[in-house]
Amino acid sequence: SVNPDLASERQTASFSVEKLTALLDGGTEQTRIRRAVVEAIESDPVFSRENQYFQTQNERYEAAVRKAVHLQKKMHEMGWTENGPEYKYIYRALSGDVAFLLHRVFMRSISVLGSDKQIAKWIPLATQHKLIGSYAQTELGHGTYLQGLETTAVFDTATQEFILNTPKISAMKWWPGDMGRSATHTVVFAQLYIHGKCYGIHPFIVQIRSLQDHSLCPGITAGDIGPKMNFEHIDNGYLLLKNVRIPRENMLSKFCEVRPDGTYVRQGSQQINYFTMTTVRISLISDEVLTPLMKACTIAIRYSVVRRQSKLKPGEQEAKILDYQTQQEKLLPQLAAAYAFHFINDYLQELFNRGYREIQRKNFDMLPELHALSSGFKAIITQHCTAGVDICLRACGGHGYSLLSGLPSLYTKIVASCIYEGENTILLLQTARFLIKCFMAASAGQPVPPSVTYLAAVKHGKCPAKNKLDFLSPDIYTEAYQHVAVRLTSSTAAKLQDLIQSGVKKHDAWNQCTVQLVQAAKAHCHYIAVKNFAETVEKLETKAGIQKIMKHLCDLFALHGIFSNTGAFLHDGYTSAAQMDMVTASYLDLLAVIRKDAVPLVDAFDFTDKSLNSALGSYDGQVYQRLYEWAQKSPTNQMSPAYEKYLKPLLHNTLSKL
Amino acid sequence: SVNPDLASERQTASFSVEKLTALLDGGTEQTRIRRAVVEAIESDPVFSRENQYFQTQNERYEAAVRKAVHLQKKMHEMGWTENGPEYKYIYRALSGDVAFLLHRVFMRSISVLGSDKQIAKWIPLATQHKLIGSYAQTELGHGTYLQGLETTAVFDTATQEFILNTPKISAMKWWPGDMGRSATHTVVFAQLYIHGKCYGIHPFIVQIRSLQDHSLCPGITAGDIGPKMNFEHIDNGYLLLKNVRIPRENMLSKFCEVRPDGTYVRQGSQQINYFTMTTVRISLISDEVLTPLMKACTIAIRYSVVRRQSKLKPGEQEAKILDYQTQQEKLLPQLAAAYAFHFINDYLQELFNRGYREIQRKNFDMLPELHALSSGFKAIITQHCTAGVDICLRACGGHGYSLLSGLPSLYTKIVASCIYEGENTILLLQTARFLIKCFMAASAGQPVPPSVTYLAAVKHGKCPAKNKLDFLSPDIYTEAYQHVAVRLTSSTAAKLQDLIQSGVKKHDAWNQCTVQLVQAAKAHCHYIAVKNFAETVEKLETKAGIQKIMKHLCDLFALHGIFSNTGAFLHDGYTSAAQMDMVTASYLDLLAVIRKDAVPLVDAFDFTDKSLNSALGSYDGQVYQRLYEWAQKSPTNQMSPAYEKYLKPLLHNTLSKL
Repeated sequence: SVNPDLASERQTASFSVEKLTALLDGGTEQTRIRRAVVEAIESDPVFSRENQYFQTQNERYEAAVRKAVHLQKKMHEMGWTENGPEYKYIYRALSGDVAFLLHRVFMRSISVLGSDKQIAKWIPLATQHKLIGSYAQTELGHGTYLQGLETTAVFDTATQEFILNTPKISAMKWWPGDMGRSATHTVVFAQLYIHGKCYGIHPFIVQIRSLQDHSLCPGITAGDIGPKMNFEHIDNGYLLLKNVRIPRENMLSKFCEVRPDGTYVRQGSQQINYFTMTTVRISLISDEVLTPLMKACTIAIRYSVVRRQSKLKPGEQEAKILDYQTQQEKLLPQLAAAYAFHFINDYLQELFNRGYREIQRKNFDMLPELHALSSGFKAIITQHCTAGVDICLRACGGHGYSLLSGLPSLYTKIVASCIYEGENTILLLQTARFLIKCFMAASAGQPVPPSVTYLAAVKHGKCPAKNKLDFLSPDIYTEAYQHVAVRLTSSTAAKLQDLIQSGVKKHDAWNQCTVQLVQAAKAHCHYIAVKNFAETVEKLETKAGIQKIMKHLCDLFALHGIFSNTGAFLHDGYTSAAQMDMVTASYLDLLAVIRKDAVPLVDAFDFTDKSLNSALGSYDGQVYQRLYEWAQKSPTNQMSPAYEKYLKPLLHNTLSKL
Repeated sequence: SVNPDLASERQTASFSVEKLTALLDGGTEQTRIRRAVVEAIESDPVFSRENQYFQTQNERYEAAVRKAVHLQKKMHEMGWTENGPEYKYIYRALSGDVAFLLHRVFMRSISVLGSDKQIAKWIPLATQHKLIGSYAQTELGHGTYLQGLETTAVFDTATQEFILNTPKISAMKWWPGDMGRSATHTVVFAQLYIHGKCYGIHPFIVQIRSLQDHSLCPGITAGDIGPKMNFEHIDNGYLLLKNVRIPRENMLSKFCEVRPDGTYVRQGSQQINYFTMTTVRISLISDEVLTPLMKACTIAIRYSVVRRQSKLKPGEQEAKILDYQTQQEKLLPQLAAAYAFHFINDYLQELFNRGYREIQRKNFDMLPELHALSSGFKAIITQHCTAGVDICLRACGGHGYSLLSGLPSLYTKIVASCIYEGENTILLLQTARFLIKCFMAASAGQPVPPSVTYLAAVKHGKCPAKNKLDFLSPDIYTEAYQHVAVRLTSSTAAKLQDLIQSGVKKHDAWNQCTVQLVQAAKAHCHYIAVKNFAETVEKLETKAGIQKIMKHLCDLFALHGIFSNTGAFLHDGYTSAAQMDMVTASYLDLLAVIRKDAVPLVDAFDFTDKSLNSALGSYDGQVYQRLYEWAQKSPTNQMSPAYEKYLKPLLHNTLSKL
């Protein structure tokens, strides 16, 4: 039975939840396929996450391998293929709790970097899991800056082998997933040396564990890097190479080859390869970043209408905490952001599909823009969503802090997304470099890519809003965002030039501008996100109340951004203080409006109770019952392990009844 | 041997580290005593935290009980007493990793709320650990709003007993520490009923476990609430009462008594009791909030001079990451905040000592101000420090994400401080209520407490700064903070009045202003923190470079606050856009200045390697070596538990050598 406080929230929805779900999925057929996958996965006990919060790192790892192995059978059984429509829903249905993800990266790197012969040899073996692959790039002392990697691969013409070594401790491979305990093979990135000359970083296939008994191969030291904030199910590993010899054929050689006599040959274009690295940043957004925020919103908002605390009006019963303005102000902007980023993700996917088609036609013109967008959006989306999950967690008070709420795990996992696949600050500086370059070009009248043409059209007007309702006009707020992005880019470009003209060296000048460059890059992405949300709303069908509620969320997303960062909009007087008060008024009004649809808006994300795995967030809202039931299953609910040794001796002289 | 990249940082310190340590400790004698305590604790293997990151919740709990029991012996052995000068350093030296903290709250509540007779009976038993106490206030459905508690205690005149019950699931006690597995007794807060009439919440001593065999007493259901984000060492518990009878004498009766015939008598003043609750919020700041931030700064800053990445200047070796402006901008403001909050903590301690003396003289005039300050500062300090630890964690990239860095545990623990002892938003609204009241009084010419007299003196001037150096003047920035605090309080008071005058009911009007009231409360506390830092620096001796570096940190703390919240200062034109550019320039300049002393500034916190328990933050900076050594000890570094069952069957058809 559904908690009546939650049930009442659903009776007043201003729109069709089912239609909104279909919109998010990209059509009713997609919703049907997704639900079928979820049903098949969740009804299979091997994929159960029921006891997840009680398991040790060892248990989590073992379960993830079990699920990965079982998934192969399941896919065969269900007729799901890697090219089928179901495939993209499997990982989401498993909540990512599965091993061998790096095995897939191993395969992709061979497909992209390997010669036809190498692909023909390794891909079938990997596909049939006759080996388990990993991908060994990051080192203890080296991450983002790939040129700094220290592992060496020296070509020995005499034996036609490469000799791989870890010259010092900072060169030890560190972090590769599936490598700590599972992998038999890995792709090692190392500095290639031929006849004493260094040719830079290249990829090599190296066997690390015996296929007979899983023992480490000669010259290999490898293991698990130990406990982490999350990802207990993954055996992130370390790898130390000591005179490990591999045949010449094991250097992945689509783009570079070492001939038997030691001649180094570079061939073909690596552009498509860089493009692949760029797309990874976009591909992770949906499952690794948006889904956790949507789950956190679902949990926190459902809980906030079930939890009652203090009296809003004297004499009445205690109020639902979502009726407090401060609680709305915490949660509803996160909900709006989840929708905003869902739509920007659609936009990026489309852009990247187009980019892919262009690149296949050997047109690489879009690459710089795609790189800048993928870097910037990866950074701001991971940052916003991580902050959003954190806010949801804290907004649930003590119960949010229990692992049983599901929120701590969502947080400890999503926070990693700010670091992996490019640390966010470094990525934003990549975007900023592109912005500065385009700004200079635009100022000089040269053509620039579509997403930055606005930089050329610097306007010095003022925000035309006259009352608070004007700030519900997408034109008004989109233009304000655009103005700020232009101002931050142009002022930083000016500072950079001033410094250089005053004699500061270029690299020092750049470093002295980086704090402001990061701000400019964020403003650019924020502007595009707002603009895209507004354009998406414009195109929605007006039926079933969908467009109306999406318009409210778009307004909230935009106004929350202004309200949280007023200085950027006030700085040059584009927005006046009086206008800022209008923004605040409209923003606070919107909270009360959206609050009415808060539960239907999270219901539309369509998470099953099993996928939320939260005692606070279930569809029926039976929070307290579930917390109690789950706690009783905890392995800490056995007799105190400290009793015999420590408590009994302490208490043994006490009278039996005090 | 110290890593040379770290060693070089110490050679150029602009001040005496030892003298700064003494300043933080409150004198060289205090430093000596603290170090002696640390030495005694850390040299005792029973207190070791060496394998902490590898332990399960059960193991952590058992270790915490072992340490608590051993601590009694240790104190006796060392001659430490609860009133001695060593006492306050013990908990810090143990890093809080010890059980029976609620036993102390149990004792304090009896001391404060119990009659002389009750104190005489229970305190000696508790002191000798002949029982283990807990404190059962919070319920599954009720936290901060105590009046909402649902547990009942019905007086039975026939048997002279109270009958305690948990009428429904939301009334179950939930969260009390030491109660899940250890406690034999607890203080239960329940609604008192006599002859069918409710007299509100009262405290009752209830035995919950047998002193013979630790089994649960009749009518008691109790256990552990399961896994949490941190605090694995504490057995936070649940408690369900079913017709549990306790004698009339077990109601704590200093202030209220039930006579044998059921007559209810209220006696004495409870003011001192409220004051005790207020002081708890202040007492936790040092150990639970400041120490974690100081540790996080130590770890992240030491790591940031050891870690090298990318080239700042072409042709040179890779740069220390602390040389990047963006890294400085992440870490150095956290360092400045740690000092700022250390000094505001001194200020609050002093204020509370004064308040305590006044209250003992039956003068309760300071109570509202103390309540407002303790609420507001508890909220802003926990919030800032939690954000600071998070920033330090992410600033260490992937290695920060490993539990071995120590940073995840610091984060997952400190984040709880935003929720416990009063959820921060609720606390800030308490402060805001006080501010609005005082603002109205001050506007009407009535006297107000010292910390808010500034609200009366509304000035409509402009910031007089003419160049970026002016913003290094404490008068300039302190006044700017004051101006913002006054503006936010007065404008929200005006909005509140407008709403009420326009016919909105008082409680609705309040709710509609709460987002802005929270802003006003934060601005008030921020202003006092800046003012106090500036005044503290003023008073420091000018010798040994201490005052100079503290002045830099004070400036940084103040300017970072403006830089991060420019809108508040720009809003009414008090600060102009040109002045804001000066703030930015001075702020960025300061980063480069303080960066030079960053390592000495964290060295002054004087944490031992054992107390940091971090592979990244040790004094010698041998980061990579330590990560590798520690990882090898992880229980995940045994043969894959998935091999026999899952991997072997998968791989068994593969050729032995590929």
